[in-house]
Amino acid sequence: MTLKLTYFDIRGLAEPIRLLLNDQEIPFEDNRISREEWAEMKSTMIFAQLPCLHIGTETIVQSAAILRHLGRIYGLNGSTESETSFIDMFSEGLRDLRTKYFTMIKTDYEDGKEAYITETLPGELLRIEKLFCTFNNGENFVSGDKLSYADYALFELLDIHLILTPTALNGTPALKRFHGRFAERPNMRLYLNKRAELNPFVSGNGKQ
Amino acid sequence: MTLKLTYFDIRGLAEPIRLLLNDQEIPFEDNRISREEWAEMKSTMIFAQLPCLHIGTETIVQSAAILRHLGRIYGLNGSTESETSFIDMFSEGLRDLRTKYFTMIKTDYEDGKEAYITETLPGELLRIEKLFCTFNNGENFVSGDKLSYADYALFELLDIHLILTPTALNGTPALKRFHGRFAERPNMRLYLNKRAELNPFVSGNGKQ
Repeated sequence: MTLKLTYFDIRGLAEPIRLLLNDQEIPFEDNRISREEWAEMKSTMIFAQLPCLHIGTETIVQSAAILRHLGRIYGLNGSTESETSFIDMFSEGLRDLRTKYFTMIKTDYEDGKEAYITETLPGELLRIEKLFCTFNNGENFVSGDKLSYADYALFELLDIHLILTPTALNGTPALKRFHGRFAERPNMRLYLNKRAELNPFVSGNGKQ
Repeated sequence: MTLKLTYFDIRGLAEPIRLLLNDQEIPFEDNRISREEWAEMKSTMIFAQLPCLHIGTETIVQSAAILRHLGRIYGLNGSTESETSFIDMFSEGLRDLRTKYFTMIKTDYEDGKEAYITETLPGELLRIEKLFCTFNNGENFVSGDKLSYADYALFELLDIHLILTPTALNGTPALKRFHGRFAERPNMRLYLNKRAELNPFVSGNGKQ
């Protein structure tokens, strides 16, 4: 089964998927297309959006659906219904913050960045930190001892906020420790080093 | 196991969950709270948001995570990984349109409603119609012969657009037929008749 992930040459919505595939050593074609290629391809895509994952003859779009699919087939979706629901709920909370981040980046960067950092972000991160500490005081993974797709989404969300402001995680020590130790997973470190050389933008407009 | 769904006395994000529970004859407490009760409760909620589903001693928040949880435990999540992924992807597409709808309703109703109806909606519905016709030409359910949680989300999304404009579905005959026949499922009809007497708003600001 060959995997091909199509997206723009940015981190954006595809990066948690790329992190998961690289860290899990799942071979895939990282197909990064230009705006010109996208203009030609857009009308053929199910929702006229990317990312898109081709798996053999099947096509999955919608970044969250792709992550959950990979979670299910690669054992990164919890072992019980209770764990699966927790991972899902946690990921949806991450998504809410990510939406706020990208809305600011895309529509209000110049005027809204400072208010986002000082007013929006701290409360949001505190809630995520509190939920993250549900299992093992946050010393392992989102769902406790076992890695899940939510860990990749969490790492990326924290990582882009550290680009926005290097002090982003100073008020949430468990999230800060998670970010530090997750970056040192051997396959993560390899990917992050490789990515640092290319240094793709977080978002399509180059603001981050 | 007792189920208690807490939300405001509107349709909003909880209505697809209520539709599923009523149609499936799953007993639950439909706990509709006032703004005053919410002000007292807000800080205790995981992401300071509703809806919230209590199942025995467990708590699940985030409407999409709740729907997927119910989908898994009540056999409304497809029979194969391929079906589950399709249902998930389809639901994410519905969510994108719902987000556009609620953004218009909440921030741009007076000035943006007409442009939403004439410019945004038709193309979005055509894409959903096309995907809906993947199985059985759209003559059954989202994933073909078998009901899933996505059908409840689809029905509600179509239903609120028919409130916005009664001609919403005239360009998408398969979705229009789905809406008509889904409303005639016996338990759906019972719930919809009961709801019509109370006639709750779709959104918190009363615009719809």
